[in-house]
Amino acid sequence: MAENGSADVEKQKLLLHQHEEKHFMSSEVVRDIIIGVSDGLTVPFALAAGLSGASASSSIILTAGIAEVAAGSISMGLGGYLAAKSEADHYMRELKREQEEIITVPDMAAEIGEILEQYGVEPHEYGPVVDALRRNPQAWLDFMMKFELGLEKPNPRRALQSALTIAVSYIMGGLVPLIPYMFIPIAREAVIASVILTLLALLVFGFAKGYFTGNKPFSSALQTAFIGALASAAAFTFAKLVRA
Amino acid sequence: MAENGSADVEKQKLLLHQHEEKHFMSSEVVRDIIIGVSDGLTVPFALAAGLSGASASSSIILTAGIAEVAAGSISMGLGGYLAAKSEADHYMRELKREQEEIITVPDMAAEIGEILEQYGVEPHEYGPVVDALRRNPQAWLDFMMKFELGLEKPNPRRALQSALTIAVSYIMGGLVPLIPYMFIPIAREAVIASVILTLLALLVFGFAKGYFTGNKPFSSALQTAFIGALASAAAFTFAKLVRA
Repeated sequence: MAENGSADVEKQKLLLHQHEEKHFMSSEVVRDIIIGVSDGLTVPFALAAGLSGASASSSIILTAGIAEVAAGSISMGLGGYLAAKSEADHYMRELKREQEEIITVPDMAAEIGEILEQYGVEPHEYGPVVDALRRNPQAWLDFMMKFELGLEKPNPRRALQSALTIAVSYIMGGLVPLIPYMFIPIAREAVIASVILTLLALLVFGFAKGYFTGNKPFSSALQTAFIGALASAAAFTFAKLVRA
Repeated sequence: MAENGSADVEKQKLLLHQHEEKHFMSSEVVRDIIIGVSDGLTVPFALAAGLSGASASSSIILTAGIAEVAAGSISMGLGGYLAAKSEADHYMRELKREQEEIITVPDMAAEIGEILEQYGVEPHEYGPVVDALRRNPQAWLDFMMKFELGLEKPNPRRALQSALTIAVSYIMGGLVPLIPYMFIPIAREAVIASVILTLLALLVFGFAKGYFTGNKPFSSALQTAFIGALASAAAFTFAKLVRA
């Protein structure tokens, strides 16, 4: 199997490595930035537009917007922290359970067989693999965690990193639509500048998001701007209804 | 391996099944409900409390709160939709790439070996498994997707389901802190009722969240209430600073 030309093997290792890198990036830090910035750009923007529709002053809109950014960044950041932490706790609980099962359940090896049977591998073929895993309880445990339960060993610094990434991204995104209200005291003038500035930011962010996650950048830009527009239209309508 | 007593095998299948069920529940629908309700209970609550600190009227607080719930539920719901969709797209792209690699890279079998070598399985032991997978290209592809890239086949209805679950959960959570402002016109009286009502809701929700995700319910209740309190304290402080 693995013995034809070590250059090929090296090339394949590199490919394998690139796969993993890409997967890691798109699913962790980039995801946190995307969560923070999308929501940060959208919700304070929509809130401010909605309040301007309800003829509030720039000053009250700015107050509400800043309060929203403070609350939103803390809520989402800590939410991300707890999500990562509870994922890590889940891993530890399942690890302990799996450890106990390996000791107490007499024929855990059947589970390995079951996993490989799903891929059409027959008992006489996977027998030696099962024996190899039996020899090494730690490898067996790691194998079951990943291939039976689909759980990856969590990064211990993940929870804190995730919290900070989400919170900072939310603040960065959330301040953009509020800038015009800081300088233009008449809300119905400020809202126009805010709409233009935020739509531009949503397009640029959507484009970058598409680029970094490997999706089509232009359609991602339009999608992202559309969500922002839809959320503010809804906020605008509801704010008008409540004030009427 | 798998041939001692079919009762044992059945019991193990059951255990295996329970594992998967539990993992599925805690990581998909329950996670969406948690994302929606936590943020829905926290952000509109904190925004309302913050605005009451900046001496806004109940009516403007209610307007801002409803606008926030409308914007937040749409932004988070569509965010969830796009996240699930981009995960599915990522899976399809990697599937296509893996399919091409199986055809074009001469010795892809080395990759299977590499995966199993990480668990201390030696070439003469995994040889038959590699041969079995070579026989069946579809099984080989599924094996690589799951064990090399760690990607699960996405559920096609997941994106829509996720969007609706998050949005509805956000609205349910977000309306709770706003109820007092609907009935009590003086904001500094309404805010007290809102704080009590929302803290109770956060404690109950935190308890349920802990219960359903297998974490300690009491510490989860306190954690959840703490996040709500921290977010509103921050919103309150920033709103006061902006108005000063």
